[in-house]
Amino acid sequence: MTDVVIAGVGQTPVGEHWDISLRELALKAIEATRQDAGGLAPQALFVGNMLAPSISGQAHLGALIADFAGLTGIEASAVEAAGASGGAALRQAYLAVAAGAVDVALVVGVEKMTDRTGSSVEAAITTTIDGDFEGVQGLTPTAQAALLMRRYMYEFEVAHECFAGFPLIAHANGESNPNAMFRKAISAETYRRAGMVSDPLNMFDVAPNADGAAALLLTRAELLPAGFLHPLVRISGSSMVTDTLALHDRPDPLAFHAARLSVERACRQAGILPTDVNLFELYDAYSIFAALSLEAAGFAGRGQAWQLAQDGDAHPLRLNLHGSLPISTFGGLKARGNPGGATGVYQAVEAVIQLRGLAGKNQVPGARRALVQCLGGPASSAVTHIIEVI
Amino acid sequence: MTDVVIAGVGQTPVGEHWDISLRELALKAIEATRQDAGGLAPQALFVGNMLAPSISGQAHLGALIADFAGLTGIEASAVEAAGASGGAALRQAYLAVAAGAVDVALVVGVEKMTDRTGSSVEAAITTTIDGDFEGVQGLTPTAQAALLMRRYMYEFEVAHECFAGFPLIAHANGESNPNAMFRKAISAETYRRAGMVSDPLNMFDVAPNADGAAALLLTRAELLPAGFLHPLVRISGSSMVTDTLALHDRPDPLAFHAARLSVERACRQAGILPTDVNLFELYDAYSIFAALSLEAAGFAGRGQAWQLAQDGDAHPLRLNLHGSLPISTFGGLKARGNPGGATGVYQAVEAVIQLRGLAGKNQVPGARRALVQCLGGPASSAVTHIIEVI
Repeated sequence: MTDVVIAGVGQTPVGEHWDISLRELALKAIEATRQDAGGLAPQALFVGNMLAPSISGQAHLGALIADFAGLTGIEASAVEAAGASGGAALRQAYLAVAAGAVDVALVVGVEKMTDRTGSSVEAAITTTIDGDFEGVQGLTPTAQAALLMRRYMYEFEVAHECFAGFPLIAHANGESNPNAMFRKAISAETYRRAGMVSDPLNMFDVAPNADGAAALLLTRAELLPAGFLHPLVRISGSSMVTDTLALHDRPDPLAFHAARLSVERACRQAGILPTDVNLFELYDAYSIFAALSLEAAGFAGRGQAWQLAQDGDAHPLRLNLHGSLPISTFGGLKARGNPGGATGVYQAVEAVIQLRGLAGKNQVPGARRALVQCLGGPASSAVTHIIEVI
Repeated sequence: MTDVVIAGVGQTPVGEHWDISLRELALKAIEATRQDAGGLAPQALFVGNMLAPSISGQAHLGALIADFAGLTGIEASAVEAAGASGGAALRQAYLAVAAGAVDVALVVGVEKMTDRTGSSVEAAITTTIDGDFEGVQGLTPTAQAALLMRRYMYEFEVAHECFAGFPLIAHANGESNPNAMFRKAISAETYRRAGMVSDPLNMFDVAPNADGAAALLLTRAELLPAGFLHPLVRISGSSMVTDTLALHDRPDPLAFHAARLSVERACRQAGILPTDVNLFELYDAYSIFAALSLEAAGFAGRGQAWQLAQDGDAHPLRLNLHGSLPISTFGGLKARGNPGGATGVYQAVEAVIQLRGLAGKNQVPGARRALVQCLGGPASSAVTHIIEVI
């Protein structure tokens, strides 16, 4: 297949954007991205969005955003795979460019989740789990994560405090990200004292719902002028995999099977091992998801990933910015914020900034290759990309 | 790009399926399709759906349907572009196979619209138009079509009766389609006497909301065994184009600009002229849409398409099954029914049945090449495919 490169990236701050509409938010990210890419004109737009039809009362986002961005006449559609929507939209754009059907494709992930009250948002998010067999019982995605964390603690005899490392790293990294929703490092003591959300998940185990938009511009390397504005980064691996939607259908709920398969397939395509990457933008919607994602990717044995996040040099593989496997390098979902269908696009944008060496205080030294993964539901959908400097 | 063929098709009857769930409906179409294709195993699933998150309270349809169909582990995502969702899902699957990323891709279009009362369904459908500038004024898609029809009647001095040909042809063709929602031919008198829906649209100018699922299995020709079950049909042209979402933003609302561009691009890819096709599965959600689609594709001048649908031999280009440009060959949206995001997939399934020569009483003699088009909103999204016998 053709080499697909990411020629432009853009993002809005993540947070509460009560003063601007969904389409305006998307436009800001698109304009930043087109400027970043030196004005390349896209022929296609893929929108990653999870909840606009139910929360914002607006579907048909492809035509809406193409229109508002002054791109009427291009191809445009919306892609949904719950929390993995942004990654799924990136994958569709990648396929369109790889197929040679379009030369330049734009991906935008956009979500507005904070205009509505918490209960109506939680109800909307709950449409992403199995309605007939889970939703009907009152289960929500957060309660699902709580069940997983409780089971992990029981099965592997791990105390709740052991998960502290994940939000600590995320918040430390978010502190210097101007686009992060929360820009303040936290201590282990803050984590320990945080209020309960859904036992055993506390406030720092759960990433905040947020508003935001991020965008990417994809093209083929040979279409860029010599001496292009930025170091070229290409997508060397792309994979999307599903698992059962309902958690109760899994023989082993603590194995994120789709996440594992998706990493394997993306790495096989890129011709690398997971350990060949310099950073891992993982899907830390919940602390327990960070742990299970690391284990699924093979970076830790079952029940052991929390050890990688521990303070000190006890473990050779560490997850902070100067460790050997930095995660959540701009704060992750936890501190940057989790704007639903935009999240997967933010992750890829952040990876590109790292690979360009422009991450400032958040820079991972010598970053040449990134593993980027987003999940829908409890890894019922997993989308993994490997992005690297050419 | 690689030759992409449609190796299997399947569909459920269109109608009111109150006794089975969304996932069961999708499964029926998938099982029929996999059987039709001789058991080829898909690696990817693209779901065309318009309203399940708002009407059925269920998002994340990719993982849900892959799981329920026993295909856990494959790639799956949902694609939305209002009424063009089914066509957009077909296009994504086409791109995935053309890119060489997957060998076999499944497309399923599924929608359940009749479980809820009319007003809540109309509210959900209205999320597909411009919420901030049209929906907020009380406009609905049906009212939009009424405005277009009224304008057409005024601008071209055409009486309402002149549109009768479109539903007459659709209902005549639907009579012998066992999967059609309405299987009864109607007369010009029935049309003339029908109750008003939204002035000047009467009951026979509006396709019925319906439940249904249809599926397609795509692969590359070289992967099929010699002496495959069916004559091979390939996708020789594929195009998706957007126009402004809001009708009031168009300099000429009676020109379906995206529909025209989409036909042009698909024909250019296939190396044909629109007149080289043997049938046209067009998007007759409203009689006026049928007329405007024919004009956009260049089959009639502005304000003249209704003449093609007239009874008798006055016009050389006629639209019934034995004419030179048959439309809605299994009843179209009007008589087969319009199951939202499934509609675009039904259209392609019906085209394949025609090209295989298995359409029975609905057979278009000598059908070798079909033009298939579905629209989202008032052609704010247009997806066109050209499917032909190899």
